[in-house]
Amino acid sequence: MTQLEQAKRGNVTLEIKKICQEEKIREEELLEGISRGEIVIPKNKLRQGTNVIGIGKGLRTKVNTNIGTSPDVIDLDYEIAKLRVAEKVKSDTVMDLSTGGDLDKIRRSIIKNTRMPLGTVPVYQAAVETINEKGGIIYMDIDKIFEVIKRQAEDGVDFMTVHCGVTLSTLERLRKEGRIGSIVSRGGAFLTTWMIANEKENPLYSHFDRLLEIAKEYDVTLSLGDGLRPGCIADSTDRAQIQELVILGELAKQALDSGVQVMIEGPGHIPFDEVETNIILEKKLCHNAPFYVLGPVVTDIAPGYDHITSAIGGAYAASVGADFLCYVTPGEHLRLPTLEDVREGVITARIAAHIGDLSKGIKGAFEWDLQMAKNREKRNWKRQIELSIDPELAGKMRESAKPKVEDVCTMCGEFCAIKMVEKALRGEKPLTFA
Amino acid sequence: MTQLEQAKRGNVTLEIKKICQEEKIREEELLEGISRGEIVIPKNKLRQGTNVIGIGKGLRTKVNTNIGTSPDVIDLDYEIAKLRVAEKVKSDTVMDLSTGGDLDKIRRSIIKNTRMPLGTVPVYQAAVETINEKGGIIYMDIDKIFEVIKRQAEDGVDFMTVHCGVTLSTLERLRKEGRIGSIVSRGGAFLTTWMIANEKENPLYSHFDRLLEIAKEYDVTLSLGDGLRPGCIADSTDRAQIQELVILGELAKQALDSGVQVMIEGPGHIPFDEVETNIILEKKLCHNAPFYVLGPVVTDIAPGYDHITSAIGGAYAASVGADFLCYVTPGEHLRLPTLEDVREGVITARIAAHIGDLSKGIKGAFEWDLQMAKNREKRNWKRQIELSIDPELAGKMRESAKPKVEDVCTMCGEFCAIKMVEKALRGEKPLTFA
Repeated sequence: MTQLEQAKRGNVTLEIKKICQEEKIREEELLEGISRGEIVIPKNKLRQGTNVIGIGKGLRTKVNTNIGTSPDVIDLDYEIAKLRVAEKVKSDTVMDLSTGGDLDKIRRSIIKNTRMPLGTVPVYQAAVETINEKGGIIYMDIDKIFEVIKRQAEDGVDFMTVHCGVTLSTLERLRKEGRIGSIVSRGGAFLTTWMIANEKENPLYSHFDRLLEIAKEYDVTLSLGDGLRPGCIADSTDRAQIQELVILGELAKQALDSGVQVMIEGPGHIPFDEVETNIILEKKLCHNAPFYVLGPVVTDIAPGYDHITSAIGGAYAASVGADFLCYVTPGEHLRLPTLEDVREGVITARIAAHIGDLSKGIKGAFEWDLQMAKNREKRNWKRQIELSIDPELAGKMRESAKPKVEDVCTMCGEFCAIKMVEKALRGEKPLTFA
Repeated sequence: MTQLEQAKRGNVTLEIKKICQEEKIREEELLEGISRGEIVIPKNKLRQGTNVIGIGKGLRTKVNTNIGTSPDVIDLDYEIAKLRVAEKVKSDTVMDLSTGGDLDKIRRSIIKNTRMPLGTVPVYQAAVETINEKGGIIYMDIDKIFEVIKRQAEDGVDFMTVHCGVTLSTLERLRKEGRIGSIVSRGGAFLTTWMIANEKENPLYSHFDRLLEIAKEYDVTLSLGDGLRPGCIADSTDRAQIQELVILGELAKQALDSGVQVMIEGPGHIPFDEVETNIILEKKLCHNAPFYVLGPVVTDIAPGYDHITSAIGGAYAASVGADFLCYVTPGEHLRLPTLEDVREGVITARIAAHIGDLSKGIKGAFEWDLQMAKNREKRNWKRQIELSIDPELAGKMRESAKPKVEDVCTMCGEFCAIKMVEKALRGEKPLTFA
């Protein structure tokens, strides 16, 4: 049985116990959240000894790291190094998005080297292998897609992005409306190319039942991908995007009814003032399934800083109900991320997630800030550094600028406001400096 | 006459003409905005040849850079280097917050070396000189404060932060409620110390008319400071903060009636879900005077990343009506900023401002994103780099990872979604890769 089926029967699994302890919530709450499809536990039945996490309503907002090769950069050791960085800076999950090199070998190596739940986009492998074997994605067999999905499930993949909502009808809406940026999802682009050339419906939609069967067998959580997500501000919240979301909502309901765990992806590039609308819409159209957000990237003009544009959109999204943030690195729109990009991307996404958690009132979130505030007031620098989301960087920065007096910093020196007021309130001959 | 007095009479000054050209708005609109106190032009009468900017409703959100020495780090050349960096990465204004060294010399040197409007916090100089001369801020004469304000106005300072709302009644509210982080404003702390030790009202409040007189004479824009801004999430939107804001609103109205330009500062550390409330409150309580926001820093736990926590708060603030963002650097809460901190701080704040401008529908904002989107779709990398908010960094990152095929990037290589779909739509033997 899947975690969903167990929850529907009121069975408290080991995974549910663990999550309740970690998130400090009651078992009934979690059981109900999972039963209603508002929470998922991405954990393949075959995978053991991994970090068990829940994603969804009432839980801490989680962060995902994308790693993986591309046709241009194939270096397994480097990808494993990225994995270690992501784990070190506390990413919750990782996705292997490799499209270059021996894809089975890379995925298996990543699985072996991490305790994080692992996600993939199987259509990448189906497409790349077809291209290598037959010279073009247009020759991809429908069976090939499901064979790859099963192969990956057997390897222990915990969640899979499947772009089931890129249908003939969605593409027709896209064509009618027109776009500045067409399609920016790789999975969406592979499928669109195949569909146009073959004049056939998306197999992930027309054969959704086959997908559900495999997902159920291994308890793979489906992450319904947003192949039509807008790739620029000009295309945001357009009919093609919302048409796809409507279809994803139907499929999510079907998955839920079949005992398959499911979450929804979205929305890509969206201006800040449309973020809340997008979150509400996802929740309403998709029976409150967990929302896995890509970005939202809230402006197009800052390549090199898209970890920041995404953190801005992501913090807003999380604040109003998004459950799972996909990190975006400074390299986005420019290059495959470097190790440093991964590090910055994860930490920035974690900041956004935490900001969301403060708004959502997630247990423990406010207490973290409170501890920092108390130690800042006491000017306990050791504890401030320890409490920082990135103690390594905070420590380095403080070390780089030693104040003349130990308990302040070089920003204000002896004119530290906190220290001045403390003295003034104690009536301690205020501000008669040595 | 001040710009405000001119606008009330319908006189179109050279400055108004310039701003209308740059912001592409009609003269009547700008005249009305200034007359109602919703827009300010921070420009000292004695200063010539500077960049003239407007701050307020309907105009592009502006960004300020803080520079200046502290008792711990006194290096004028380094501060001038920061000034050059800020100017290069297109900060709109600069504030000299120096508290260490020869303050007159530093300020005059900064004024000489920049075309940006310059702001200061005169109480710093009054306090520091008093401490040097008399051994303690408690000995500061009331006349001293106004003498320094006049001295700085005569030097050409365009806008001044004055913490007029730190009154005996505000402090009483603060004392009654209690706080985790007391006071984190340096100006607020200097004044509080003086007020407690001398058991007297804040001279900037009790002698507000003297302040108005000087401001009017030189057309110095007053920036009513938030001495009681919360310094941590736990203290956000508390009675002390709002009490101060209420008083600032009264003073702003008095300034407006006297022909003195005025803006309001706030709100410091505020959780994300209280940002909009704070902006609405400022606008309502202060006759829609321009809001100059510090942060808002939306979590306490990320020292080293506070340019990002502030950009998140700042983007939200700007989206819902904030007019002027004070940059925050990665060094905030840890050290006096370095050159690199300044660079990152300004660019990040500009990103936040632009995100706000997209929401506000400021002229030209959407067009910038549209140009980027079109060139991304065409995979015109040269133009993408040129259009980036930081072409230098974007260019470097692209150079660091050359793709095998010129028109894509190493993220996806030949599997570039945009390129695939373009081919598919052209029916160009899609995805039969070489």
